[in-house]
Amino acid sequence: MPDDAATPTLRRATLEGYSWDDVEPRRYREEPGALFEGVTRQVLFSDPGLQGELRYFEVSSGGYSSLERHAHMHAVLVLRGAGRCLVGEAVYAIGPHDLITVPPWTWHQFRAAADQKLGFLCLVDAERDKPAAPSAAEREALMRLPAVREFLAGR
Amino acid sequence: MPDDAATPTLRRATLEGYSWDDVEPRRYREEPGALFEGVTRQVLFSDPGLQGELRYFEVSSGGYSSLERHAHMHAVLVLRGAGRCLVGEAVYAIGPHDLITVPPWTWHQFRAAADQKLGFLCLVDAERDKPAAPSAAEREALMRLPAVREFLAGR
Repeated sequence: MPDDAATPTLRRATLEGYSWDDVEPRRYREEPGALFEGVTRQVLFSDPGLQGELRYFEVSSGGYSSLERHAHMHAVLVLRGAGRCLVGEAVYAIGPHDLITVPPWTWHQFRAAADQKLGFLCLVDAERDKPAAPSAAEREALMRLPAVREFLAGR
Repeated sequence: MPDDAATPTLRRATLEGYSWDDVEPRRYREEPGALFEGVTRQVLFSDPGLQGELRYFEVSSGGYSSLERHAHMHAVLVLRGAGRCLVGEAVYAIGPHDLITVPPWTWHQFRAAADQKLGFLCLVDAERDKPAAPSAAEREALMRLPAVREFLAGR
């Protein structure tokens, strides 16, 4: 066992409870051209001693995350608000503490309700691949499914 | 990319929000002789596709988790209630959404307030070592620190 353990950390939640001491809200996506609306990202746990990372995303009312897929899995716990998510070909209404898994290479997007924020924790592997956006043909295939088409149109 | 992706899952939180469809509360510790009081464990995410695991622990008012340490790290987000935790030689009062990291080989214990539950998420590596309880000598060394002594006595 190492004789010089790392230091414990306590980062307090602010009064409202969805931001934290020493945790800075970041841009949701760095890539230019990524299509999303009203999303912030806060990294809650990312440490060389952990193989997973925990992030908190907040989508403002009417906003949405990017439609994407990738090899890594997502494991999501809704922390506040209400909205819907697309996972594969299914659309789910989601609310506080619901648990959602997004399997590898599965299209997904999160949308906040028109009148409520949607805030959720997302667990991922620290080492992971970059998300891919749908090609024109892939988007067209998705749009052929009525429930997906309605969801992507924000209805 | 695999052409047969795993199935997405949605597990809804129950109305109260601290239990979930298809998530069974488990014994907190299987080891006989482990010293704890009023703790349940629910595994929220544990998947071959994830290197991390997310669990939800709930400590009933006046209860406490086992005093232990191990090589793996804990990353904790308080979900409900109030209490205190010992991490190393420090005692912290904790409440909703506070973030706590427990470094490797650091003694730690969570205690609920006398009149409130304490519920928290805990992120760990899926592959991890077993916890060790303090030896008599280690407990004695901890008890020499006044703040730790008071905490362990539940005061």
